[in-house]
Amino acid sequence: MADKQDLIRFGIMGCAEIASKVSRAILLSPNATLVAVASRSIDKARQFADRNKLPENVRLYGSYGELLDDLSVDAVYMPLPTTLHLKWAVMAAQKGKHLLLEKPTALDVKVLDEMLDSFQRNGLQFMDGSMWYHHPRTAKMQELLSNSHLFGRVKAIHSSSSYHPPPHFLENDVRVKPELDALGALGDAGWYCIGAILWSMNQKLPTTVTALPNTIRNSAGVILTCSASMLWDEEETVATFFCSFLAHETMSLAVCASNGTLNVDDFIIPYEETAAGFSYTSGAMFVDLHIGWNVKPQHVRVETKLPQEAVMIQEFSGLVKGVKYLGARPDTRWAETSRCTQLVMDAVRNSIDDGYKAIKM
Amino acid sequence: MADKQDLIRFGIMGCAEIASKVSRAILLSPNATLVAVASRSIDKARQFADRNKLPENVRLYGSYGELLDDLSVDAVYMPLPTTLHLKWAVMAAQKGKHLLLEKPTALDVKVLDEMLDSFQRNGLQFMDGSMWYHHPRTAKMQELLSNSHLFGRVKAIHSSSSYHPPPHFLENDVRVKPELDALGALGDAGWYCIGAILWSMNQKLPTTVTALPNTIRNSAGVILTCSASMLWDEEETVATFFCSFLAHETMSLAVCASNGTLNVDDFIIPYEETAAGFSYTSGAMFVDLHIGWNVKPQHVRVETKLPQEAVMIQEFSGLVKGVKYLGARPDTRWAETSRCTQLVMDAVRNSIDDGYKAIKM
Repeated sequence: MADKQDLIRFGIMGCAEIASKVSRAILLSPNATLVAVASRSIDKARQFADRNKLPENVRLYGSYGELLDDLSVDAVYMPLPTTLHLKWAVMAAQKGKHLLLEKPTALDVKVLDEMLDSFQRNGLQFMDGSMWYHHPRTAKMQELLSNSHLFGRVKAIHSSSSYHPPPHFLENDVRVKPELDALGALGDAGWYCIGAILWSMNQKLPTTVTALPNTIRNSAGVILTCSASMLWDEEETVATFFCSFLAHETMSLAVCASNGTLNVDDFIIPYEETAAGFSYTSGAMFVDLHIGWNVKPQHVRVETKLPQEAVMIQEFSGLVKGVKYLGARPDTRWAETSRCTQLVMDAVRNSIDDGYKAIKM
Repeated sequence: MADKQDLIRFGIMGCAEIASKVSRAILLSPNATLVAVASRSIDKARQFADRNKLPENVRLYGSYGELLDDLSVDAVYMPLPTTLHLKWAVMAAQKGKHLLLEKPTALDVKVLDEMLDSFQRNGLQFMDGSMWYHHPRTAKMQELLSNSHLFGRVKAIHSSSSYHPPPHFLENDVRVKPELDALGALGDAGWYCIGAILWSMNQKLPTTVTALPNTIRNSAGVILTCSASMLWDEEETVATFFCSFLAHETMSLAVCASNGTLNVDDFIIPYEETAAGFSYTSGAMFVDLHIGWNVKPQHVRVETKLPQEAVMIQEFSGLVKGVKYLGARPDTRWAETSRCTQLVMDAVRNSIDDGYKAIKM
């Protein structure tokens, strides 16, 4: 347990559903604490505090500006609709707050760069709220994938992220509103597919990105389903993904390399909180007469003491602590990861808008 | 056990590696028997018989024509290179032999239709040698997938079929020779992906087929890796596949429907011979706070008394028996399945040859 004075003090800006999960994560994280919550009205902030049984000393604000003026807030968690990110992120940077920003980070990379510049100029830490990178399972998968004996060169990747929300979501949720989360399923679910594909390629950008001609939009033009392919010329690697608000829950990643294959079916939110699994096969061949395999998939189970979102808070807070107390520079790897994902997401959207043409990166 | 006089009498034309597996399957099947083997030389036929410990009464021929003239042969299993299929399949039909033809069936649908016409005109049974359709696991998966409560409408499908053979294969195997198996990995491995995708769609042809720009060819122009996407306009369904001779062993099918998801990772050749598994998830939602799922994948294991290739022989022989003894007409569903797969394979090849344009079906 950190000395209480060392805890990174969080303010939550916006009371979206995901904020309940993250408020719990902040309280679970050993190096962070929750000091303030802001909503557009004080009533909403109070309801959020009550619903989530937040400690009584958490200050409640009826406007985002008040929270940013609170000098006791070190870092902001911002689950606002994407359209509002630029205004409030830049203001948070100006007020000296480190930022954990909910994904998708921005409507396009130009906007993201404007935000990232603010944080860089002010010497502040930036991270997006993709939780799965922080699960110890992800580190274990990365360790195995980078073992060239087990896997070798990645040749093909497929990822799927979908869910089938009830009708009221498809009519009213911010994620289907062009003025709030204009990227729809691409921004909400596709973000993870793109991130997982880039993660499999060590954040190397593809040479070309081409959307597949299966985009489904709602009447307001927001994407409800789309797919895309990516190509890495030098590596001769191909990736495809499917994301949708109109299909059953999926969050899968399949990586096929020259010597091995890795499969995970719950990479975004593990089936259970305390442990998560994946499977891999390496060096598989057929037995004589091709009537079976010489090896079967290995199932790996990785336990975690903290839920992945609390590990995220812990890692983010560790970086903030370094900046705040130890004179460290902000770690820009997380901003770079967000930026790579954003660049590919932009390319998918541009390909869709341009009649499914191949977009050179 | 059938009366010995009712057994369908097989002749094997061509001693490819796969013929060893199928000769065993014929001997395991309760309604079939192996009576003859032909190769291009009597020595090769004898070596095949010795290597596979075939019964002494199996007649050996040093030419394919002799086997087709053997009046005691009811049905031919033909694992010849694709380029030779037309000549020998048509001749088999003319000689009144039913045909189990190794895949890929033909270089294009025009050639396949010529073969299929011969069998139809002569009232003979045709089936291609895709074994996985015959595993009881496949029937179980189909039963579940057709349960609209569990799965609903199929929205996205992904399949992968790859293996990484040793260098001598990539230099010498018939599957990389333009004059023998000109379709390379598309014909050998992609055939299964296309078949599995069409199976998931009840053999409904896609509206468009578009190859992805990742084709790798050998110096002779034979495909070693390729990918494609397919689209069903009316159903708003998308499918993608990856096939390769340059990547680790995969044979996976993932079907994402509106209410459920099905995953199988060894659909072509099960990990083991006596039982095979798959998993599915239906009605999955997140638990409160989105910290886990309300259901986990169900793992289903289906035992089989006979290996899938022996079930294939049994089913084929049952159809031949109907024609031979009971006056039944040949069952054309298997020819239709082959033809759908061939049509999509042609479209993938045409898309590749035409600069990855979308091919309307």
